[in-house]
Amino acid sequence: MPVVIATLMTKPGRRDEVLEAFEHHSPAVHAEHGCLLYVVHAGPHRVTVVEKWADQASLDAHRDGPVISTIIAATADALAAPLDIAVLDAFPTGVGRKGVL
Amino acid sequence: MPVVIATLMTKPGRRDEVLEAFEHHSPAVHAEHGCLLYVVHAGPHRVTVVEKWADQASLDAHRDGPVISTIIAATADALAAPLDIAVLDAFPTGVGRKGVL
Repeated sequence: MPVVIATLMTKPGRRDEVLEAFEHHSPAVHAEHGCLLYVVHAGPHRVTVVEKWADQASLDAHRDGPVISTIIAATADALAAPLDIAVLDAFPTGVGRKGVL
Repeated sequence: MPVVIATLMTKPGRRDEVLEAFEHHSPAVHAEHGCLLYVVHAGPHRVTVVEKWADQASLDAHRDGPVISTIIAATADALAAPLDIAVLDAFPTGVGRKGVL
């Protein structure tokens, strides 16, 4: 189950519009096939989305789908650096639930 | 409840030793007061840890404690860029469990 960390560094004063785009469109992503997590976070000059997908095919379909294209178009001008999308594998550690999403 | 995304970009051929340091020491972090999540992921040239803490005081105690110092010392030479630690706020979206860690 791939985990994706998407990091958007924002221009001064423009974080909130990026955050609002993700807040607005996240429910549509949650409805996509195979979406297990799509969680929005923000710091002073960045928005970071933590994603978990059921499989690579679901992630590929999301990446080729209309919702992410809408989000990218809505946020592109507000970014201070290229969008960083890290597609990662989980390495569960410890026991219990603290070591896995 | 603060969420932290720690990103370690690794030198060529040295990702696995960074990953192993986090795998080895994560159970000790899980035992720290207020640790809700400490989840290790990796891509080809990076290790990314997703953390969730009960409150800022717990995160501060972790940051000032011995375990993270040990991890930082064990991994420093293998990094290709400065460690990026983003302390973030969650912005829950949607309904149900897909929009929050």
